Amino acid sequence: MKKALIISADNFEDTELLVPYYRLSEEGFQVEVASVRKRKIKGKHGYQVKVTKTLEEVNTDDYDLLILPGGRAPATIRKETRALEIVKAFFRENKPVAAICHGPQILISAGLLEGRRATCYRTVAKELKDAGAKYEDREVVVDDNLITSRQPSDLPFFIKEIMKKLKV
Amino acid sequence: MKKALIISADNFEDTELLVPYYRLSEEGFQVEVASVRKRKIKGKHGYQVKVTKTLEEVNTDDYDLLILPGGRAPATIRKETRALEIVKAFFRENKPVAAICHGPQILISAGLLEGRRATCYRTVAKELKDAGAKYEDREVVVDDNLITSRQPSDLPFFIKEIMKKLKV
Repeated sequence: MKKALIISADNFEDTELLVPYYRLSEEGFQVEVASVRKRKIKGKHGYQVKVTKTLEEVNTDDYDLLILPGGRAPATIRKETRALEIVKAFFRENKPVAAICHGPQILISAGLLEGRRATCYRTVAKELKDAGAKYEDREVVVDDNLITSRQPSDLPFFIKEIMKKLKV
Repeated sequence: MKKALIISADNFEDTELLVPYYRLSEEGFQVEVASVRKRKIKGKHGYQVKVTKTLEEVNTDDYDLLILPGGRAPATIRKETRALEIVKAFFRENKPVAAICHGPQILISAGLLEGRRATCYRTVAKELKDAGAKYEDREVVVDDNLITSRQPSDLPFFIKEIMKKLKV
């Protein structure tokens, strides 16, 4: 069975986690949600999601795809050394990493965006450019293994490129 | 271009509207949202969605699919004569109608469930049976043109059957 990993925390942007979660489930993926602690996390809009792995428990070899939803969760996750190790492992193995809205902040903290084409939420654009990324203001930007989008209304574009990358 | 219609109102269950909305958009559908008045509607979790048609403006010939999300919106919609006319037109032409959670209440008010296999949110089950439907407690029930599900966690199953029905 194909497996996807979502890394998030409290105050995630609800649709940016749930829409990919349901879409990958529809496609037969097993989807794990990892966070700092193994208790439910709560979105900005109040949806609760079960955390199935702590960051420490994640074995990156198990997954075909990493998703980094936005909201205020990435501000928490980017401080976690283990989260940065996980995203670096996905990049090292050239596995698909899809980040939306504030999600790319985690990639900035991991030092992975130098010279990469990417997008993000408009208030994050300056930070993205400062990290050496080539920022584009578009629904979705695909640069090799990296798929990025700006905001919830980009979700159909974001998901479409994820599906292409997974060849499902 | 293929077109889908969503009928809802304030206090819709946010993911039950947004997940199909984004999924159909991903698939290249134009998705219209119809309600009583042409102003934004707000979900139980605070998401706002633009209404693009009043119920009066809907021409059912334009659409390949009707979606009826849940939440408290169906309690409003089921009182609207024009909404009941619309769902009856979809059934008359044997076009796909997909209802989830409290969404089937609209079909009950339109008198369309006599003898049909269907599911719904558990608190609606009695009303569904009283309307003559054959209630099943399953993730998704497909009976000819009618696709029904129980709750948000059923969305991957609901969407998968919608996609099969649309042959996309």
